[in-house]
Amino acid sequence: MTHNLLEGKRGIIFGAINEQSLAWAIAKQAHEEGAKIVLTNTPIALRFGKLQDLAKTLDAEIIPADATNEDDLKNLLVKAQESLGGKIDFILHAVAMSSNIRKKREYNNLNYTFYQQTLETSAISFHKLLQIAFELDAIAEYGSVVALTYIAAQRAYARYNDMSDAKALLESITRNFGMIYGEKKHVRINTISQSPTITTAGSGIDGFSTFFKISDYISPLGNASAQECAEFCVTLFSDYTRKITMQNIYHDGGFSTTGMSNKYIDFLENTNKI
Amino acid sequence: MTHNLLEGKRGIIFGAINEQSLAWAIAKQAHEEGAKIVLTNTPIALRFGKLQDLAKTLDAEIIPADATNEDDLKNLLVKAQESLGGKIDFILHAVAMSSNIRKKREYNNLNYTFYQQTLETSAISFHKLLQIAFELDAIAEYGSVVALTYIAAQRAYARYNDMSDAKALLESITRNFGMIYGEKKHVRINTISQSPTITTAGSGIDGFSTFFKISDYISPLGNASAQECAEFCVTLFSDYTRKITMQNIYHDGGFSTTGMSNKYIDFLENTNKI
Amino acid sequence: MTHNLLEGKRGIIFGAINEQSLAWAIAKQAHEEGAKIVLTNTPIALRFGKLQDLAKTLDAEIIPADATNEDDLKNLLVKAQESLGGKIDFILHAVAMSSNIRKKREYNNLNYTFYQQTLETSAISFHKLLQIAFELDAIAEYGSVVALTYIAAQRAYARYNDMSDAKALLESITRNFGMIYGEKKHVRINTISQSPTITTAGSGIDGFSTFFKISDYISPLGNASAQECAEFCVTLFSDYTRKITMQNIYHDGGFSTTGMSNKYIDFLENTNKI
Amino acid sequence: MTHNLLEGKRGIIFGAINEQSLAWAIAKQAHEEGAKIVLTNTPIALRFGKLQDLAKTLDAEIIPADATNEDDLKNLLVKAQESLGGKIDFILHAVAMSSNIRKKREYNNLNYTFYQQTLETSAISFHKLLQIAFELDAIAEYGSVVALTYIAAQRAYARYNDMSDAKALLESITRNFGMIYGEKKHVRINTISQSPTITTAGSGIDGFSTFFKISDYISPLGNASAQECAEFCVTLFSDYTRKITMQNIYHDGGFSTTGMSNKYIDFLENTNKI
Repeated sequence: MTHNLLEGKRGIIFGAINEQSLAWAIAKQAHEEGAKIVLTNTPIALRFGKLQDLAKTLDAEIIPADATNEDDLKNLLVKAQESLGGKIDFILHAVAMSSNIRKKREYNNLNYTFYQQTLETSAISFHKLLQIAFELDAIAEYGSVVALTYIAAQRAYARYNDMSDAKALLESITRNFGMIYGEKKHVRINTISQSPTITTAGSGIDGFSTFFKISDYISPLGNASAQECAEFCVTLFSDYTRKITMQNIYHDGGFSTTGMSNKYIDFLENTNKI
Repeated sequence: MTHNLLEGKRGIIFGAINEQSLAWAIAKQAHEEGAKIVLTNTPIALRFGKLQDLAKTLDAEIIPADATNEDDLKNLLVKAQESLGGKIDFILHAVAMSSNIRKKREYNNLNYTFYQQTLETSAISFHKLLQIAFELDAIAEYGSVVALTYIAAQRAYARYNDMSDAKALLESITRNFGMIYGEKKHVRINTISQSPTITTAGSGIDGFSTFFKISDYISPLGNASAQECAEFCVTLFSDYTRKITMQNIYHDGGFSTTGMSNKYIDFLENTNKI
Repeated sequence: MTHNLLEGKRGIIFGAINEQSLAWAIAKQAHEEGAKIVLTNTPIALRFGKLQDLAKTLDAEIIPADATNEDDLKNLLVKAQESLGGKIDFILHAVAMSSNIRKKREYNNLNYTFYQQTLETSAISFHKLLQIAFELDAIAEYGSVVALTYIAAQRAYARYNDMSDAKALLESITRNFGMIYGEKKHVRINTISQSPTITTAGSGIDGFSTFFKISDYISPLGNASAQECAEFCVTLFSDYTRKITMQNIYHDGGFSTTGMSNKYIDFLENTNKI
Repeated sequence: MTHNLLEGKRGIIFGAINEQSLAWAIAKQAHEEGAKIVLTNTPIALRFGKLQDLAKTLDAEIIPADATNEDDLKNLLVKAQESLGGKIDFILHAVAMSSNIRKKREYNNLNYTFYQQTLETSAISFHKLLQIAFELDAIAEYGSVVALTYIAAQRAYARYNDMSDAKALLESITRNFGMIYGEKKHVRINTISQSPTITTAGSGIDGFSTFFKISDYISPLGNASAQECAEFCVTLFSDYTRKITMQNIYHDGGFSTTGMSNKYIDFLENTNKI
């Protein structure tokens, strides 16, 4: 599906690694909707991922950047404007990493250096991006910035660990910077709270498959896929949503407002345990 | 702005009266996006409004219906499918009325007959519409139903009176029927929580203009207009949002998540009173 | 446990039927905390229940009232003040009834006469009580009114049916009347969103036991009991909480903010189905 | 007011500096309710504040600790158990500091070293406290931990700056650790979202007095005082609330659920500006 929603628009996409990435699907969809984009990721991710393939397909430049490094972000924003020929219309922030999860440190046994890194990479990087963009006046009037988040920011999920805190912080930054950037430049900032999705990042979480299945059972429409996320995301980048800002929008098949669906009760009653 | 978002889709729009109506703007936008639509309103509204003009412009049939009357709703859903040539893809519910507001009965001095009518017209009509559509299987798979609401469903607004309760009930119906219709037919049901808008309905509220201005001051992007509401609304009708359901989405320039903006503090500090 | 929290206070308790009722436990606790109370219920409930036994134990007068009948409510408020010797300090509203649930009408097949009754009995009765109390100036300054609710007002629960809508309406009334009564008389109005509890009302819900067990598994502290609800409720009646109003407070062992607990994941992974 | 609510209980109070501190009022109230307490604050705060006076009045030991230092926290928890003669029943976390606010760095011009410190001091310190207490098994079964927060965690407040993010993080930690500590030891963890209060911390915020007045106008019951906060807080420490956990409870005179009160509309309409 494509309707030229982003014709003539310039965007930066963070965080694509491979075909499973939400950012990958979003970059592709944005391209198909007529946008010119710049892709970015860390030097390490560039080495191990397949971003070059995507860049070729989308005729997009790759500008490496460590999202926690202010100089890198400055360079990215300056170079992206040169590459794209003007101010940036939209940005996707899909950056998340937790060494506590990787190293199997439970939430009641966190390594605090890792914890700082989780927050730094997965949330504070968003503030840095916005602060530098604001200072450089790099985003066009009524531009749109979207970050990806998860409902663990509102409710506790055992295996999601310190990433829950990072997402809560990310959503707070969205509101607080959204107020300022909205007043000054009509720039919108929102988060999409996406269903669990089978990505490289998601799969790192222990017990992810139980997570994924239960979520699919509970959600009246089932889990939302990466492609569906991409389709929704481009509406937020487009001019159709110019008065939506500082919001966290659930793109989750109805999961967030479902307590107990018929489908889920049936599932539970047909196990031996209830 | 138009991108053929609703090409080939069939829709029913409740509640348009005149050019100021949100439903009027939404009907026009849906038409411009390629949809075929049926317009509906009560016989009385049809007599006093200008819906015939709109119908002519949009080449749309008008099928009168009292939204609280089950027979009327049944007739509407049957006839609309005939008129449009198939199952319904989207419906807008923009129906609200409070005799307590009209008759200046304060919230602590409600007339309970009026109160029942407020709930019946502004909220229960939505359940009836959905129940009958469900029974008739009148909505296409992955169809989309949207109702208009206001933040008074979450926070108390002095002059909004018993309409606050009606909107809370409307949003509850959205969640509860959304779960069922989602499981059975993948039909999405959502509400848009819109900025105060200068419409015939809005203007009936005492002190509405203070309401409107304060909201505009607080919202970082300012109040959302009817046209902007229409543009957002068609994305919810479109296939771009097929996994969003049971949600209440704020289309309000950031009002709902703004506590105290700089703009608003400046306004307050420049009065004599603070 | 008792600490004389309500010494010298006068209260009215709606909705006690038998030892399982939340209202029963709350009435007992309020009495033990030093309050004088009046019990009320419908004439029918009085005939089939055991309220006389409770009244005897608590040395409380029973004043029958249909909570949907304005004359009955007026009589109750006048007589209760006489019986207790002054203005009322606290009121518990624990009134709920759905004929749609009783008659096994699903949420997509509601009988609308029943639906109106569900709203009337379970929510509008609360508005009537408050409006009449306000008019009679029957509640003392800084008095406290509490109604019981359930999380189905926020998220859809298949078997909870139209009671979900009634609870959403009840919570809305709490906010809207709370604003007025707070400004005028410092009267506080709140709801307690209680864990599922094995009561006569709860047991009427199909599949309630699955409901109850799952909720107990998910809640980190387990479901809250009727006695625990009573203990919390008296703090809301007491002078310790004089600045809490228009709130819905979850008394649910942490259920509402738990997405997926370790305990629950273990349970799910140890069934055959996941 | 005192009812022996905390008889025989042992508590630790962080963050009291002088008579204006919320923590000061809470420590006093806890003492009057029969608790034995230990006071703690940073060495610097101890030098400049008047904590010794309070300690004398309450017959409480002061154990200095930098809340961001794990060794200090360990020492505190070990020594406090010795001093109080057993496991800890309740803890108050009232620790917050922002150098960005002090140095007048706006939210779109943050110093990131300061930002890290804001998060570290005002939120991560809470995780450290809980993690160490959990490891040492320092909190008694059904113990209660409370942290103080502000509604800026939900909505953007211009002058509250990066403290908003810290409070969002603090509330997230509350949910996530609450789930674990609840499952393992029935320990409850909650936050109180308090009205703006004239404290040393609050006064550091530019334009605080406008903030305070507007909040007082909007709140139907007016702002909650430090003493009222203390009275509510002891109910959360007490056994009356043993099934409340992972919640953020607004103690704010109804502010959070008030959109536009009559009182506030009157105020606005009587200025020159509307």
